[in-house]
Amino acid sequence: MNVIGVDLGGTKILARSIDITNGKANKRVKSPTPKDGPEAVLDEIAEVVAEVDPDRECSLVGVGVPGLVGDDGVVAQCPNIDGWDRDVNVKEGLESRLERSVVVANDVNCGAVAEHRFGAGAGTPDMLAVFVGTGVGGGLILGNELREGARGLAGEIGHVTVTPGGRRCGCGGRGHLENYAGRAGIEAEARRRAASGEPNLLVSLANTGKIKSRHIEKALAEGDKVAEELLAEAVEALAIGIGNLATALDLDRVVLGGGVVDKLGQPFVDRIVASPSFGGFGSSTCDLRLAERLDDAGVLGAAIIAAER
Amino acid sequence: MNVIGVDLGGTKILARSIDITNGKANKRVKSPTPKDGPEAVLDEIAEVVAEVDPDRECSLVGVGVPGLVGDDGVVAQCPNIDGWDRDVNVKEGLESRLERSVVVANDVNCGAVAEHRFGAGAGTPDMLAVFVGTGVGGGLILGNELREGARGLAGEIGHVTVTPGGRRCGCGGRGHLENYAGRAGIEAEARRRAASGEPNLLVSLANTGKIKSRHIEKALAEGDKVAEELLAEAVEALAIGIGNLATALDLDRVVLGGGVVDKLGQPFVDRIVASPSFGGFGSSTCDLRLAERLDDAGVLGAAIIAAER
Repeated sequence: MNVIGVDLGGTKILARSIDITNGKANKRVKSPTPKDGPEAVLDEIAEVVAEVDPDRECSLVGVGVPGLVGDDGVVAQCPNIDGWDRDVNVKEGLESRLERSVVVANDVNCGAVAEHRFGAGAGTPDMLAVFVGTGVGGGLILGNELREGARGLAGEIGHVTVTPGGRRCGCGGRGHLENYAGRAGIEAEARRRAASGEPNLLVSLANTGKIKSRHIEKALAEGDKVAEELLAEAVEALAIGIGNLATALDLDRVVLGGGVVDKLGQPFVDRIVASPSFGGFGSSTCDLRLAERLDDAGVLGAAIIAAER
Repeated sequence: MNVIGVDLGGTKILARSIDITNGKANKRVKSPTPKDGPEAVLDEIAEVVAEVDPDRECSLVGVGVPGLVGDDGVVAQCPNIDGWDRDVNVKEGLESRLERSVVVANDVNCGAVAEHRFGAGAGTPDMLAVFVGTGVGGGLILGNELREGARGLAGEIGHVTVTPGGRRCGCGGRGHLENYAGRAGIEAEARRRAASGEPNLLVSLANTGKIKSRHIEKALAEGDKVAEELLAEAVEALAIGIGNLATALDLDRVVLGGGVVDKLGQPFVDRIVASPSFGGFGSSTCDLRLAERLDDAGVLGAAIIAAER
């Protein structure tokens, strides 16, 4: 059975035709995300889907969005999409444009489901997926099913406290995992250090642009002291956050992905596992693995969630 | 339907006849826990059960034990029961003595199930129960079912890290929740402080005996500075540990019980909820409540688990 999977991101819309019996992603169409509001975004998604499936062979479309999705397909907040300034019923808006059934899901949950069915989480009933990019997101599979939680926020491991009273978080809290492990948290701290007399390669490589995962990788490779300190904090934050959840849920598999992890690779995973904060009482038998699906996880997961709903 | 519930504790064995349709606990028999090994304990449980149900009206017995229970009813570790020095098949041992079907479960999980069905967790599909006594234990209900986890250790929130690099834990880790919130952790710190020149009421009230929950209550009531500092640490540890799990699972209900909580009551719960570490991103809508079943939670939960298995 073929289902169209769409991954709506801050910079691009990706659509593919997915054979959900084997997880194989076929035809691929990519387009920049419009920045002039939700209606323009929905129009562009409709065009991309039509291009992936011109002969209307698929009657079902799954769409992963970077926001909180209500049961009725309403997407309230999409802070990563410029111009998305209000509640939008993405399901209705796309169904009327596409004349196909549309299922809308959170993009991080799509990634988790993709890894669980056809990636590094295959074969285990319970799995946590953690994606480390600009922020830190997570998705939780328990008993082979995606856990959504009371408000659809389950898996939001980026906002667990790892350093009580620590760095201020955009959500209003303090010392949350993503303030230490996310790219934006690392950037903020690197710039703060540079401004207070600790020049570092992270800032000088990025110059006035964003500090990207490749800048982190390069600064580490060149032995930059600040970069190494910030990486050690990121490792510790992930070890505490992931280790605690593995302990409390008695999980045997955690999959780690996202831009920062893809760049730093297995040595980064190995450092997390080696931390005493990770290998405690409950997480000592937990298997932490690199994500396998990378760029197609979003479209694959969106298609699977659509087919299973 | 009546089922016999048995709660095996370090000091006493409690058995009651439970009407599992309404959670009502009827006839009650109590006996000290033998300290001369597992066989003597099983003999005593058989006697207590016979006394609760002399006419053999119940064909099913649920037994809650303070240890890790394997699928086959084998209890490997019971550190709280003197003389329990080896693996024991409690299910087989009791079934041959009682000629009734026996289901064995972890006592903390029994307490969680009791609160969920007929206590402070009634009416919600997902609930975490946290019991603060000598240590800190927990049980997790997700989708109306007890989560056991890959190794039967799910809910072990006592061993999540709340203070990285902090107090040493009996399990080999550091800075775990129970080292700050459990009675034994509070006692160890109070004695350490007394020994290093900070005399305090906790130690002087207990003298050479154990520092009990009532000593903590009294020292706080008298404004003892060390007791207040240790309580503030306990509150913060619980706020972080519970708040993080509520965030990651998007839970809307947490039930708090155990000896320390029973003694300190609602003001203790209110302090946890008021902590910034609790009320973050994910746990702001989580309802934290006092346990309601108290002394009969163990027997009630054991009977329910037996009936539902």
